[in-house]
Amino acid sequence: MTRIDRERSARRIEHDIETLAGPAYTSSSEAICRYAYTDVYERTLRYFTDQLEGLGFRVWRDPVGTLVASNVEPGAPAFGIGSHCDSNRNGGKYDGTLGVCTALEVCRLAVEAGGGVPLRLISFLEEEGSGFGQMLLGSRIMAQRVTEEELRTSIVDEDGVPFWDSAARAGYPVERWRDSIRTLDGLTGWVEVHIEQGRVLQDTARRIGVVQAIAGYVHGDLRFAGRADHAGATPMGYRNDASVVAAECVLELERLAEDASRRVPTVGTAGEGTVVPNLINVVPAEVRVGLDIRSVERDSYRGVVDAITSFAETAAQRRGLRTEYRQRQETLPTTMDAGVVAALERAVQATGQPYRLMPSGASHDTQLVAPHVPSAMLFVPCLDGVSHSPDESASSDDAALGAELMLTAIRDLVA
Amino acid sequence: MTRIDRERSARRIEHDIETLAGPAYTSSSEAICRYAYTDVYERTLRYFTDQLEGLGFRVWRDPVGTLVASNVEPGAPAFGIGSHCDSNRNGGKYDGTLGVCTALEVCRLAVEAGGGVPLRLISFLEEEGSGFGQMLLGSRIMAQRVTEEELRTSIVDEDGVPFWDSAARAGYPVERWRDSIRTLDGLTGWVEVHIEQGRVLQDTARRIGVVQAIAGYVHGDLRFAGRADHAGATPMGYRNDASVVAAECVLELERLAEDASRRVPTVGTAGEGTVVPNLINVVPAEVRVGLDIRSVERDSYRGVVDAITSFAETAAQRRGLRTEYRQRQETLPTTMDAGVVAALERAVQATGQPYRLMPSGASHDTQLVAPHVPSAMLFVPCLDGVSHSPDESASSDDAALGAELMLTAIRDLVA
Repeated sequence: MTRIDRERSARRIEHDIETLAGPAYTSSSEAICRYAYTDVYERTLRYFTDQLEGLGFRVWRDPVGTLVASNVEPGAPAFGIGSHCDSNRNGGKYDGTLGVCTALEVCRLAVEAGGGVPLRLISFLEEEGSGFGQMLLGSRIMAQRVTEEELRTSIVDEDGVPFWDSAARAGYPVERWRDSIRTLDGLTGWVEVHIEQGRVLQDTARRIGVVQAIAGYVHGDLRFAGRADHAGATPMGYRNDASVVAAECVLELERLAEDASRRVPTVGTAGEGTVVPNLINVVPAEVRVGLDIRSVERDSYRGVVDAITSFAETAAQRRGLRTEYRQRQETLPTTMDAGVVAALERAVQATGQPYRLMPSGASHDTQLVAPHVPSAMLFVPCLDGVSHSPDESASSDDAALGAELMLTAIRDLVA
Repeated sequence: MTRIDRERSARRIEHDIETLAGPAYTSSSEAICRYAYTDVYERTLRYFTDQLEGLGFRVWRDPVGTLVASNVEPGAPAFGIGSHCDSNRNGGKYDGTLGVCTALEVCRLAVEAGGGVPLRLISFLEEEGSGFGQMLLGSRIMAQRVTEEELRTSIVDEDGVPFWDSAARAGYPVERWRDSIRTLDGLTGWVEVHIEQGRVLQDTARRIGVVQAIAGYVHGDLRFAGRADHAGATPMGYRNDASVVAAECVLELERLAEDASRRVPTVGTAGEGTVVPNLINVVPAEVRVGLDIRSVERDSYRGVVDAITSFAETAAQRRGLRTEYRQRQETLPTTMDAGVVAALERAVQATGQPYRLMPSGASHDTQLVAPHVPSAMLFVPCLDGVSHSPDESASSDDAALGAELMLTAIRDLVA
């Protein structure tokens, strides 16, 4: 077990976080706005570079701009730590950046403690998708989960400039993007710290979450087509009201997700809704409901998807409407490595601090690393579960605890 | 009982309708678009003027442009008939215009039959509100249900030009707008023909509806405020999902309206819905539902309003949300005159044609006339209940039947 001066670590993490929330590191004074290839993003990478070089780490970038640093040679066995430091479009100080700052603190602690723990810090490019509209872009490039055609043409910034051209203009040898995967060479493990983005840790008074799996999910749209009738001139029995069938499905989705959760954590959300013609005196002709259904087990979320589409079909038919379901996207669940999870759990148990084994409902770069490297994640609580907002708040004390757990677990695993 | 040559009347009404659907009478080739003070509206009024003057009627305009015609002196006892000939923004050939054409046919039949039935035809200005965003504007001006301040300042066209200035520019002595009410002087009764705008007559195979009351209604907004949580990171039990409470209220509104309808025709519609932030992976923080609740009895629709707001309060509290209800508007129900209704019913019974006594769920100029003059309405079926659309369709045979019934009832009442 590694004992650290958590208060000192908390102060250093706090200082990093507050520095990177300053005007030099965000393009907005209202929120953190930091996207790939902007000046503020480049300054952020230089901040980490300076800190890491000051510790004696070698720092480089992959062919598209993901930052990598190590205290051993590139490709030599090392334990990976890190996250991302780009922001959401209306971002806060902690999402991603806290993970990189905590990894930096692990590097500091390793150097201070001596003993030569081999580390590789990675700060992934463009996790939030704010610059080019594609989430997890840097880690997908690293994991070769994108095509060159997409990078050259379809992945574009808000002005329509392709990712490829932007990367080249920023001075990166983007034509060598496939070499990005070499960043994973020799990695013996991987741990990412991230804010929870939920309220489970706060509401259950835990300081740390040890993530066992990252949920998979389906995004899809249920569309209901009825008839636009005059709201005054059409008695109740004469209607084919799309809003009523949509409402039944919203409630059924909740019931199905709660039911599935009794077996394995599963959520179902109707986050988007559009009504046509959306006039107060017209019975809705069409309603679209955007669905997000997740679970750490594919069978569980697929079961909810199948059940809600079948329910929608029956409910629509009963009222003389048509319904259609179209899947937009499916991302498979990612199980964390049992050995890394166990090492993190042993580390937190040794501290006596309250923790929780939990799933991650949100997506993270770690899900692209995990198929290649034994991986896990730590969550720290965030105030009221708020993320993707300037109101984000998290405790550097919790992050310092996370740094301690990582160092302990890494020593445990490397030993 | 008055027997007419219905086929000939149908042909004449059909000719009027088709003429007024021609390019000289609409500003769009896709739909009927005919708003106050436009060239196409002026040509439409001139068409009716020419037809009525050809019958020997005197034709004039009120101080804002409502067309009036009579075969007796202004102010002398006469029976009122008419509707409106302005259109919805995406209008069809029949809404309003069919009523004026049918009234014109009644004038023709009266002249042909002789016997000196005193008639006054009125074609109200701007019933649809397409030009100045205010429904029933001409009839509200006539009934003094508008203020001069509103006419001068707040009632404006889409370019922001006040109604007052537009009327003056069109050559009307708008400063004498209060004299519009003199159009009602001496009226001994009033009947308006209109398409049903619903599917009750079609689906019950009736040719005519005799309207007993025009529904009153409330328009209001229910707002639900919960919390915007990450759809993945927030287990079902940790949510305050505004869409779920809104869905419960949409279903409860349907149940309440169906329940109230067992006593008196009542409808409840959730025609508008907006979701905030409306992102597929965020639990909705806020939902607004726009409600339209109607009945021919105020107690009935007020009962539904009270019950749904109370239900919303309970449902929101149960899930830790806040709710708020704000009424936008209330329009009281208007009961038709029993004597005019009875005369129309006797007339239709004498023809042996299938009819229905029914409420009007939609608003009509007649509700502004009715407090001053014994009034009623006749509905003719429209295909699939479609109105406010270029797809509107109605039968000139049914309109001709309506003309016969009006002439019969008027003779009955005037006698």
